[in-house]
Amino acid sequence: MCERTKKAVNVGLIGVGTIGTGVVKVFQQNQKVMEKKLGFPLKLKWVCDLDLERDRGVDLSSYNRTTDYLHILEDPEVDIVVELIGGIHPAKEIIIEAFEKKKHVVTANKALLAEEGEEVFKRAEENGVDLGFEASVAGGIPIIKVLKESLCSNNILSIHGIINGTANYILTKMEEEDMSFEDALKKAQERGYAEADPTLDIEGVDAAHKAAILATLAFGSIFSLKDVYTEGISHIKYADVLFAKELGYRIKLLSIIKKKRQEVELRVHPTLIPVTSSLAGVRGAYNALSILGDVVGHVMLYGMGAGMMPTASAVVADIMDIARDIAKGTSNRVPLLAHKKLEEVSLKPISEIQSKYYLRFSALDKPGVLSKISGILAKYEISIESVIQKGRKENGYVPIVMTTHEALEASMKKAIEEIDCLDIIGAPTTLIRIENNLIF
Amino acid sequence: MCERTKKAVNVGLIGVGTIGTGVVKVFQQNQKVMEKKLGFPLKLKWVCDLDLERDRGVDLSSYNRTTDYLHILEDPEVDIVVELIGGIHPAKEIIIEAFEKKKHVVTANKALLAEEGEEVFKRAEENGVDLGFEASVAGGIPIIKVLKESLCSNNILSIHGIINGTANYILTKMEEEDMSFEDALKKAQERGYAEADPTLDIEGVDAAHKAAILATLAFGSIFSLKDVYTEGISHIKYADVLFAKELGYRIKLLSIIKKKRQEVELRVHPTLIPVTSSLAGVRGAYNALSILGDVVGHVMLYGMGAGMMPTASAVVADIMDIARDIAKGTSNRVPLLAHKKLEEVSLKPISEIQSKYYLRFSALDKPGVLSKISGILAKYEISIESVIQKGRKENGYVPIVMTTHEALEASMKKAIEEIDCLDIIGAPTTLIRIENNLIF
Repeated sequence: MCERTKKAVNVGLIGVGTIGTGVVKVFQQNQKVMEKKLGFPLKLKWVCDLDLERDRGVDLSSYNRTTDYLHILEDPEVDIVVELIGGIHPAKEIIIEAFEKKKHVVTANKALLAEEGEEVFKRAEENGVDLGFEASVAGGIPIIKVLKESLCSNNILSIHGIINGTANYILTKMEEEDMSFEDALKKAQERGYAEADPTLDIEGVDAAHKAAILATLAFGSIFSLKDVYTEGISHIKYADVLFAKELGYRIKLLSIIKKKRQEVELRVHPTLIPVTSSLAGVRGAYNALSILGDVVGHVMLYGMGAGMMPTASAVVADIMDIARDIAKGTSNRVPLLAHKKLEEVSLKPISEIQSKYYLRFSALDKPGVLSKISGILAKYEISIESVIQKGRKENGYVPIVMTTHEALEASMKKAIEEIDCLDIIGAPTTLIRIENNLIF
Repeated sequence: MCERTKKAVNVGLIGVGTIGTGVVKVFQQNQKVMEKKLGFPLKLKWVCDLDLERDRGVDLSSYNRTTDYLHILEDPEVDIVVELIGGIHPAKEIIIEAFEKKKHVVTANKALLAEEGEEVFKRAEENGVDLGFEASVAGGIPIIKVLKESLCSNNILSIHGIINGTANYILTKMEEEDMSFEDALKKAQERGYAEADPTLDIEGVDAAHKAAILATLAFGSIFSLKDVYTEGISHIKYADVLFAKELGYRIKLLSIIKKKRQEVELRVHPTLIPVTSSLAGVRGAYNALSILGDVVGHVMLYGMGAGMMPTASAVVADIMDIARDIAKGTSNRVPLLAHKKLEEVSLKPISEIQSKYYLRFSALDKPGVLSKISGILAKYEISIESVIQKGRKENGYVPIVMTTHEALEASMKKAIEEIDCLDIIGAPTTLIRIENNLIF
């Protein structure tokens, strides 16, 4: 291993979409300060995209340009390949080919890592190269490095995160501007915060991708999308937002990652959190993560979780991190998944979790209704914390809102099933979990 | 340079006070998970303290124990020396001696780095060793690594921080429990949040130490305590806390670090910040920092800024960081001060800053008073944003509270001087700066 501090480290960028354009902008604006921090030259040598003609607001003429990524992989001068095309294929094949050519890779591809991570990680290790993926979770927030390095003396006990900006924007609009879900989604689409097909964001899949990556790093065992219990926000009614407010809560699409003994809870769902908590104050397209470590206690990170420049900041941080290793003639300084050896942990099925719950029943407004509902809850050992019954009838039905003390999810599901069969109930009961022991 | 992944990296700890005891606890509780993350053995070999008999609640018998730090410096097996005795002397001499014996050093010593940093940094570089100081600022919050690495593609534009837990605890108590400064200080001392001599904390010196270190990393030019304009909180009255609340603000001891062009503002003083900002929600002994980078935008970090275990988490993160380099046979991977070359920047004198101000006059309750005060402010081109005049007389004087639009500090100081000479004024005017363009 030899130091090569004066030779430039060369980067090839594959995919010049939004984030890729941001990366080019960072190189154009901040090359000087970046090299001042590195102490050696760092060069963006190649850009590759199927469409190089489109006006991106950046001048690509000073780079080698190609529509064929193989030109980059076959250039022996390229040290680091940046994959920003997204999606599983052909991103996966490109990355693995880069590994095989002994190139380090930086990516923002959460779907790939959460769905095919096991193979990708294995291939990186086999080839002795590094894979940077800071940009895959929470954009500009440096959560990956903090988990892998800054908190490395800790057993991570839990992470609570607002890690999907689109869902958070919609929920914020619903609350602050008294909108229905549908209107808020439309507004998010108009403002560019939601895509034409918003499914991945509003159904919680994007957050679940990120949660799987975070759990992998936190617990040293590979988790994938299928391990994450996922519920989106599309069934949240404006009425729920209002009732939550009345109860002192705000509804957030929360990612919850917890380990107790060797058992992991991994879930993404709308959640009532206390309006006084810092996470409840995270508005619009911002992201935040509250991490509990057994040594450090609670740490919160807060910032823009998406967008061209915040995400580019994370991509370039990874590039510079790997470049420092290259300059020092080393690699794999920090294990890819934070831990050198993988651990055996088991996943707790959602039916076995304990939670407090918010329930909104749609019931006939007549005597004995409350007694029937609460009787069934009692049968399943679910104890009620508070009840709100008020408001106007809708087709003869009134909303009855309850919050419960901690109960077993399986019991709760059975109780709701039984309640929903009562002839006094007019529509399926809405169930939202409550998380109220947040420090932040 | 050779990899020595299987050989243990050895640590010698000098100073087993609160933080030192925390470091021992981390090694005793989490050695297994730490080594799983490193992939090689990490051993606490030595502990050194003048008093090794005192009961610290940890068993030191499995380590080599000494009252003479030279035993550690002279042990060729020791790779990393951890200095946790605090204070300038003999900490400085011990650290420099360690450098000369080619040992890497980890320290939490903010006073040393802020007052004698230039020499310490130089000596580390001369000897080609690393110096970790994550624990010197904001305890368990990984601000140093985030500035040096995660945000390395950014020009840092500003940092706003609540980085003294004692002052924040006192201000929180004053507001939440309607206390005078004196009573809140007493409570902080009873609860162990303030020392018997609280001067460094309440007069802003501790925060100024940390601000100097942050500015050094942010701007790549060495700043020291003397460069920081520093005002403490001991003159803040309960009345100011109440008036601030009425105006929609909360008073915090804020560290403000800004660069515009090549000019740096570096100041620590009580500050009115909007009650709706996230920083205003930072209560008790917590710390938080809001960083603005030209690429990433705003990022906030939040957590315990002091205390045995949070600070030990930061110390051990540094130990593990340096151990990874040792295992890879490298060092100085990231420049000590984030930047490889130091930059020329100039310090903006406090008299030249622009700020909004909160002013509390103590004035006779008679006609023409407001006109005299506002006449003098107008003369100095200070325009008034709001006025509150109410409340009971104290010795014939009433409080008049004003907030101003942005004004030049020098003009403000001259205006106050002139106003305080008026015979209608009963006591020196209280001036508190306002920072209301916070994102977090």
